[in-house]
Amino acid sequence: MASGFADIEQHLDATSGARLADYVEFLRIPSVSTLPERAADCRRAAGFLADRLRQAGLEHVEVSETEGHPVVYADWLHADGAPTVLVYGHYDVQPAEPLELWEKPPFDPRVENGRVYARGAADDKSNVHVHVQAAAAWLRIRGALPLNLKYVFEGEEESGSEHLDRWLADNRERLAADLAVVSDTGFFEGNLPAITVGLRGIMYAQLDVSGPTVDLHSGGYGGAVRNPATVLAEIIAGLHDADGRVAVPGFYDDVRPLSQRDRDELARLPFDEADYLASIGVDTLWGETGYTTLERRGARPTLEVNGIWGGFQGEGAKTIIPAHAHAKISCRLVPDQDPERVFGLVRDRIAALAPAGVRVETRYIHGGRPSLTPIDHPATRAAAACLREVFGTEPVYIREGGSVPVTASFESTLGLPVVLLGFTPPDDHAHAPNESMRLDNYEAGIRTIVRYWDALASTRLR
Amino acid sequence: MASGFADIEQHLDATSGARLADYVEFLRIPSVSTLPERAADCRRAAGFLADRLRQAGLEHVEVSETEGHPVVYADWLHADGAPTVLVYGHYDVQPAEPLELWEKPPFDPRVENGRVYARGAADDKSNVHVHVQAAAAWLRIRGALPLNLKYVFEGEEESGSEHLDRWLADNRERLAADLAVVSDTGFFEGNLPAITVGLRGIMYAQLDVSGPTVDLHSGGYGGAVRNPATVLAEIIAGLHDADGRVAVPGFYDDVRPLSQRDRDELARLPFDEADYLASIGVDTLWGETGYTTLERRGARPTLEVNGIWGGFQGEGAKTIIPAHAHAKISCRLVPDQDPERVFGLVRDRIAALAPAGVRVETRYIHGGRPSLTPIDHPATRAAAACLREVFGTEPVYIREGGSVPVTASFESTLGLPVVLLGFTPPDDHAHAPNESMRLDNYEAGIRTIVRYWDALASTRLR
Repeated sequence: MASGFADIEQHLDATSGARLADYVEFLRIPSVSTLPERAADCRRAAGFLADRLRQAGLEHVEVSETEGHPVVYADWLHADGAPTVLVYGHYDVQPAEPLELWEKPPFDPRVENGRVYARGAADDKSNVHVHVQAAAAWLRIRGALPLNLKYVFEGEEESGSEHLDRWLADNRERLAADLAVVSDTGFFEGNLPAITVGLRGIMYAQLDVSGPTVDLHSGGYGGAVRNPATVLAEIIAGLHDADGRVAVPGFYDDVRPLSQRDRDELARLPFDEADYLASIGVDTLWGETGYTTLERRGARPTLEVNGIWGGFQGEGAKTIIPAHAHAKISCRLVPDQDPERVFGLVRDRIAALAPAGVRVETRYIHGGRPSLTPIDHPATRAAAACLREVFGTEPVYIREGGSVPVTASFESTLGLPVVLLGFTPPDDHAHAPNESMRLDNYEAGIRTIVRYWDALASTRLR
Repeated sequence: MASGFADIEQHLDATSGARLADYVEFLRIPSVSTLPERAADCRRAAGFLADRLRQAGLEHVEVSETEGHPVVYADWLHADGAPTVLVYGHYDVQPAEPLELWEKPPFDPRVENGRVYARGAADDKSNVHVHVQAAAAWLRIRGALPLNLKYVFEGEEESGSEHLDRWLADNRERLAADLAVVSDTGFFEGNLPAITVGLRGIMYAQLDVSGPTVDLHSGGYGGAVRNPATVLAEIIAGLHDADGRVAVPGFYDDVRPLSQRDRDELARLPFDEADYLASIGVDTLWGETGYTTLERRGARPTLEVNGIWGGFQGEGAKTIIPAHAHAKISCRLVPDQDPERVFGLVRDRIAALAPAGVRVETRYIHGGRPSLTPIDHPATRAAAACLREVFGTEPVYIREGGSVPVTASFESTLGLPVVLLGFTPPDDHAHAPNESMRLDNYEAGIRTIVRYWDALASTRLR
């Protein structure tokens, strides 16, 4: 079957230099969706993408407004009788801070050791660029796509896809499809090709503890008033028990227990703990008692502190009792937890832990539901076959710890089966300093998508 | 006796405008001793002070080098047969951050409602300026001082007086005196004139918790590794028990118990809890079970978090497990606790609380010993008489929660009795945004010092 794509692959081989230059140009745009001062850059990234979709030969290209950053839409609908696939990715990126930990500036991409380093190089501009390039190659070489495609590239994935559900509902008719391909995931440890069949949901909140009106001299007042930073610490300490379980009453009520089959499948994955430890630089793992690492990170809910601050953070000493202290706290959710319900439980637990003498507030920042997709769907099997052909390895089916809130929306709002297919390597440092993408994964990803469209064209999806 | 100072007081009344202008000029210098980038400003403040001491008519004025910020020395030694008093204050100030909470820039002083607002307006540039002005008035009007004076104004009080002990030892001979007057304290609640007879010591440390090499995606890794921010919180939560006691084994071993007389004296002080609560903006106080608020803040040791940070602190959301998290922690110490011994105990307790999967380090930043001075010393009684004459109110004797490490050094290194006499109001917001000094306290402070030198001239100190 490989021979069937020699023309397209020859073209891809011949154009890799120009393609890399274009990908790097995309990475230069600091489209950080959570930072208000980056709104113009998000719009610039959307414009860049719309431009490239048009150049590729896609139609109805639109930078579609939302109340936040725009959604980029495009389609190609001339494959009469063939299925229609809705493709999803996001052009926004995580904040790059702390900047001092980057070896090179995060938005000045550098290509080195077969990788491109930049914020968003992996998450998710790699997968987005892969899709545009795959369609461009089909249309350039064959003049047509083998199936109908609709592209939805959003700009708020890293800030909780706040306005996407509304946009999906408003555009339900033009988004009619047989399948959604969500490309915001990656490969397994060892860069093993993978199809993600489970994604955790998320509930992201901020905890604010306020005490005295102003910072107080810790000499004059120390010992006499509640210290907001100490209270913050005590509250956070009260959110886990000694077994690593989340100590929030009701937190586990809606958690669908792992079946023996689920556990057996996860246990079959090749997982080298020593490699894993070395890759993250810690000497031992830790988590909820009674579960393996793969279960903990993919199939069990969590509560993590994403940030903490209050009072003096400089060099040396400042002797104050901080007037206030704060934390960013998020939960990863598994079926059938609901983000808003979990927020209520966490807020109530924090309120119960709050002592007199301070004011404690918990605010909801965003949420997204978890999802599980079927391994035995024909579209999943077709994706596996294409990965095997291109990478020469049998792909694994994994449950990812991360969240792509839109997955649940595609399932519920649009009623579509979802295949989660992305090409980032496991050591991509997504969300961290020195994020990078393997260029061999990027190039092979394009070739996988080229084949996948062909395979789906003859697959019965409904 | 008051009539005996009509000449000097008339001069002071006539020159208040120029004096305020000079005080404001002093306050414009951002002499923040903890910030390396402010070293030149600290030197500028030292130069300013040396200049004013020279103008006042003091002799042997010197900006004396240390390994840190310089000490400003000056003397006047022509009162044969009269006692010699060593005066101490500091020209350095606390950092001004967080700047956004200042109504006006911290180093652009504004005079309003009978106060001057600026970083250092109270702590300690007010008391330093009071001393220079008192000496200047004596020398200008009378041509001589009634006793011998030696001034030591340091530039590292807010960073732990790191190099002062060495400087004192090196200058032991020229510092020979009968008494030390340390002016870095203030008045009691309700702006009641006060003489401080007890000062807490301090032990200041930094706690660093490190986990993975880089921030990790909290989706991909959440639940599988120790989160340094969570560990930091759990360690901090483990440093107090439910009774508000410091949960560090051995912490109270060297604490001299409060006698019934100590407790009775503290209980006699006028203390209005409702006013106190209103002044700091909290609805209830909190502290070590079994002690009153005045005991807790002045006569009992404490452990406070002065700052806490790690991970994402911006608007919105960033889904990471922070690679590291930090806290500034300080203890206020009472007789007979030793800062280095207490550091060892805190470090050991933190090490015992540290779980596997993170690296935890506790670093000593600085320390100072606590002190208690005798109420019945003739120099203390003379100070009380002068305060009563100028302010028309009987002063109270208080134990202050803050630390002036040099006090213990004067007692032990130089063998001097110490009187703690300063004029800042209790609501001065020292160490906090919008620090201010009452100008009536400042002016009356000068008049108190003018009389105090006269009173001490005829007091038998040894």
